[in-house]
Amino acid sequence: MEALPGTASALMLPEFCTFRSSLHEQREMKIGLAQINTTVGDLPGNRDMVLKAYRRLVDQGAELVVFPELAVCGYPPRDLLFKRRFVPDQLESLRQIAKQTGAAPAVMGFVEANPSNSGRSFHNAAAFCHDGEIRHVARKCLLPTYDVFDEDRYFEPADLPAVVEWNGRKVGITVCEDIWGNIDVSRERYPRSPIEYLKEQKLDLHLNLSASPWHCGGKGEQRERLVTQASLACGCPTLYVNAVGGNDELIFDGRSMVSNAKGEIVSGLAAYAPEEVIVELDQTPTFAPSFRQSPMQNIEDALVLGLRDYVHKSGFKKALIGLSGGIDSAVTAAIAAKALGAENVTGISLPSQISSEHSKSDAEALAKNLGLVYHSLPIADIVSAAEKTLSPLTQDYGRDVTEENIQARARGLLLMALSNKFGALLLTTGNKSELAVGYCTLYGDMCGGLAVISDLPKVQVFELARHLNRDREVIPLNTIEKPPSAELRPDQKDEDSLPPYEILDAILQAYVEEGQSSQDIIAQGYDPAVVKDMIRKVDLNEYKRKQAAPGLKLTPLAFGVGRRIPIVQKYVS
Amino acid sequence: MEALPGTASALMLPEFCTFRSSLHEQREMKIGLAQINTTVGDLPGNRDMVLKAYRRLVDQGAELVVFPELAVCGYPPRDLLFKRRFVPDQLESLRQIAKQTGAAPAVMGFVEANPSNSGRSFHNAAAFCHDGEIRHVARKCLLPTYDVFDEDRYFEPADLPAVVEWNGRKVGITVCEDIWGNIDVSRERYPRSPIEYLKEQKLDLHLNLSASPWHCGGKGEQRERLVTQASLACGCPTLYVNAVGGNDELIFDGRSMVSNAKGEIVSGLAAYAPEEVIVELDQTPTFAPSFRQSPMQNIEDALVLGLRDYVHKSGFKKALIGLSGGIDSAVTAAIAAKALGAENVTGISLPSQISSEHSKSDAEALAKNLGLVYHSLPIADIVSAAEKTLSPLTQDYGRDVTEENIQARARGLLLMALSNKFGALLLTTGNKSELAVGYCTLYGDMCGGLAVISDLPKVQVFELARHLNRDREVIPLNTIEKPPSAELRPDQKDEDSLPPYEILDAILQAYVEEGQSSQDIIAQGYDPAVVKDMIRKVDLNEYKRKQAAPGLKLTPLAFGVGRRIPIVQKYVS
Repeated sequence: MEALPGTASALMLPEFCTFRSSLHEQREMKIGLAQINTTVGDLPGNRDMVLKAYRRLVDQGAELVVFPELAVCGYPPRDLLFKRRFVPDQLESLRQIAKQTGAAPAVMGFVEANPSNSGRSFHNAAAFCHDGEIRHVARKCLLPTYDVFDEDRYFEPADLPAVVEWNGRKVGITVCEDIWGNIDVSRERYPRSPIEYLKEQKLDLHLNLSASPWHCGGKGEQRERLVTQASLACGCPTLYVNAVGGNDELIFDGRSMVSNAKGEIVSGLAAYAPEEVIVELDQTPTFAPSFRQSPMQNIEDALVLGLRDYVHKSGFKKALIGLSGGIDSAVTAAIAAKALGAENVTGISLPSQISSEHSKSDAEALAKNLGLVYHSLPIADIVSAAEKTLSPLTQDYGRDVTEENIQARARGLLLMALSNKFGALLLTTGNKSELAVGYCTLYGDMCGGLAVISDLPKVQVFELARHLNRDREVIPLNTIEKPPSAELRPDQKDEDSLPPYEILDAILQAYVEEGQSSQDIIAQGYDPAVVKDMIRKVDLNEYKRKQAAPGLKLTPLAFGVGRRIPIVQKYVS
Repeated sequence: MEALPGTASALMLPEFCTFRSSLHEQREMKIGLAQINTTVGDLPGNRDMVLKAYRRLVDQGAELVVFPELAVCGYPPRDLLFKRRFVPDQLESLRQIAKQTGAAPAVMGFVEANPSNSGRSFHNAAAFCHDGEIRHVARKCLLPTYDVFDEDRYFEPADLPAVVEWNGRKVGITVCEDIWGNIDVSRERYPRSPIEYLKEQKLDLHLNLSASPWHCGGKGEQRERLVTQASLACGCPTLYVNAVGGNDELIFDGRSMVSNAKGEIVSGLAAYAPEEVIVELDQTPTFAPSFRQSPMQNIEDALVLGLRDYVHKSGFKKALIGLSGGIDSAVTAAIAAKALGAENVTGISLPSQISSEHSKSDAEALAKNLGLVYHSLPIADIVSAAEKTLSPLTQDYGRDVTEENIQARARGLLLMALSNKFGALLLTTGNKSELAVGYCTLYGDMCGGLAVISDLPKVQVFELARHLNRDREVIPLNTIEKPPSAELRPDQKDEDSLPPYEILDAILQAYVEEGQSSQDIIAQGYDPAVVKDMIRKVDLNEYKRKQAAPGLKLTPLAFGVGRRIPIVQKYVS
């Protein structure tokens, strides 16, 4: 790995830390915040996106333009970093950007090759570019290695954040986690705090470049607290510029913001959409309407963005959904129609001989309400061919879950055939509750390239359905009101196999998300038999989740890259 | 998290580091090496296994018994550590073990709750137990966070390894990676070396507790070098005790060993099998025959162990395999028969109208050679039912890969039905080359709970087939000699879509395992069009691998937990 030629790390040159104090009165700066939606690994695309935003903002008078963490390569690049030419190619891309900068600096995240021969090969860094060159490099000090984050796998941390002198001002630069140092009050995650160091630096301005994915449950408020605390600690304004867009499971919500030196949020950018804004710190506070909005609107917007970016960044235009008449596929279809346009979404009803009349009519009504392309393909022939083919081996045995799974897999086979034939991405529709307890068929209803609502517990699927119906009946009321059923055997109801979803979701929240044991959960008053049965089902179905489609992360702990449970294990808790 | 009551960390009590020197002549010790096969999370099972091995070895005269890293909970516990009761339950299990120890210490790996309120919640540690108590705790200094390892996600490193006084002897205790400090000559992975510290401690004995998974390509030799170097550096014997057994993707090969103070390996334990051995350092060197053996025998043994442990530790007894008459399913079946007993393996031939006669006869001959239960289920009816069901939507379009995938998915559906009906784990049979370029059908031939040879490139599948035939023709010669074909359209051959496997595997080795770019590979003389087409296929098929069954890791870089490439990304290298 080559070090970055022609640049000097702020950390390596101690004179950068001995600026004159800038207590003299200064004219208010105009600073551009470029909340952009990059694609992981798309070096030319990201470069052009950065340059266009830079030019637009400079044309509008920005004297400094700030971009998100790792804007040059997209976040998270993960093991692309280990491809031998990735970091050099990305540095070339950064140099091309730097060449186009003028007097107004552009500050953006990139991956620096670690110039030292010790420790990890890279730094997660920010480049301070102006007048055609990379003038300073600031390195991230705190590397998240928990939940979905693996930064210790790639990056060497810096001891201290960088302070850059610019036009007589002292600008402190931190990267994302650097301001998250000790958010968890029960223990200090990191032994040091970059903000504690910056406190002593008499900064005029503090920039934080972030790629902070969204999840429900107060992350927005938490960020506002961290940004204002950083401002109060540093005694200067903080500009927090966050990435926006979906990258695999992660949804970055933007919501860049500015705190003044008094710790007041004076600007809040759009949630779930790119935005370029010029802030003047003495102006009247301005907030995008989506900056603070209802929890259910956040979930809707997050899903729409995550789905759209997954489909479009994968090079697809069209999506395909199996419509059962039930609520999960209805909500998935409604999100898909918003994300891709109804004309790009095809709904397929796949009725069996067991399917109720309302399943077919509800699916059709949904498709009509949304304006989807709609077809119906009955699965009876394929199911009976499969059962007949198997009969020499199975005829002496009774019907069991095997025959239920055959139906689900016949549907999967047909949907995948249509996906192959027409180049439409199949969306899978399972919710978090059923994925948790394995109430789903591997290679059946689990087929698909993206699991849109797999991090949404069933109770919240109902809430989201009602929210989607806020203006008009998009999702048929009957779909919302009828008892959930997989319809894989006559008169089947979900509640034959599972407790009521209010109870199931509470148990799953405690077990999966909070790591509570069965005895902890039972102590809260739940039926011991139900608790033990459900957590046993969670444990037994790890193998299904291993083969599940990637799902959009909505909660603090989603199934997927942020939850790493062994498949074969025998711990009973 | 509670600290471990009743124990004291060697690191916290400086008096442990001020032993009298023990240069006086000492009687040779008898030391027990317990190379055991634990199951992740099986606290009672692992406890009993540890105690039985301890008693057996003490009964044979062992004065000290050494176990592998994290023997109490199994390795790797991964996010089980975040279950709130896991570490406390595991500490209780350790206390139960300690209670049963007598004058002969037992040294074993466990997870310690970090007693400090700063940093990660746990230490990867070793307990030195005797006379009924946990007397000392030694903590791991170097935490692997690369490839399949995520230790920085869980553990706080120790600054220094522990030195324990025992019977007038100074015993240094390191854990696995602590002796791997700077194996990579091109850069220092860690800023410090526990062995450098131990050099100064005038040790009488050095113990290294490991859970080091095997992979081909010289890892055995590398370990011998590290163990002998540690002995030479410390000026004393090193006892290296490694775990054995399969845990999900990882295969721990055992091969515990002892180096004397002169840096000579004087004892080598069995590979791929548990073993308990008492070593006396002045004895004649003794080696298990499998300690050093041929590369292909290592692959065979690793696969047999990995498959057996995956199936048995999952609670299955029987396995099921679709037999195509081709080499991948033949090799998988031969490994399964060795691992589980032929009577527990069912082979199913699933011929289509396209299948050649030799496909059926080769599959049948294989089943007969191995002694498998064998059935044939033709897929024609299910395929024609599927095509007929789809025809209203597809009749205006030509046949394409859709119809090929329908055949593969019909097979998957039937095999999964048999797996469900008879409680046999379906094994999937794809090799690394086809998984790399996506020459496989998601939800079709990719169906299965375990991908047995998914880390074996096709050229090595042929080598392994010949190796399996070394005593008699187990795999029909025709299976080995005929040109590989997916038989999804008439007269199809793999080489219609792919370059010859010798070339493909070389390109994949360079691209996937070594991270070379297309231009690097083309510069070695490969056809530019072929290189670009193949690496494009690798990149495009990340989505299939996301949903692939777990596969047994055989190479330094397997698809799976050790390779984390974004699914949606646009980097072209």
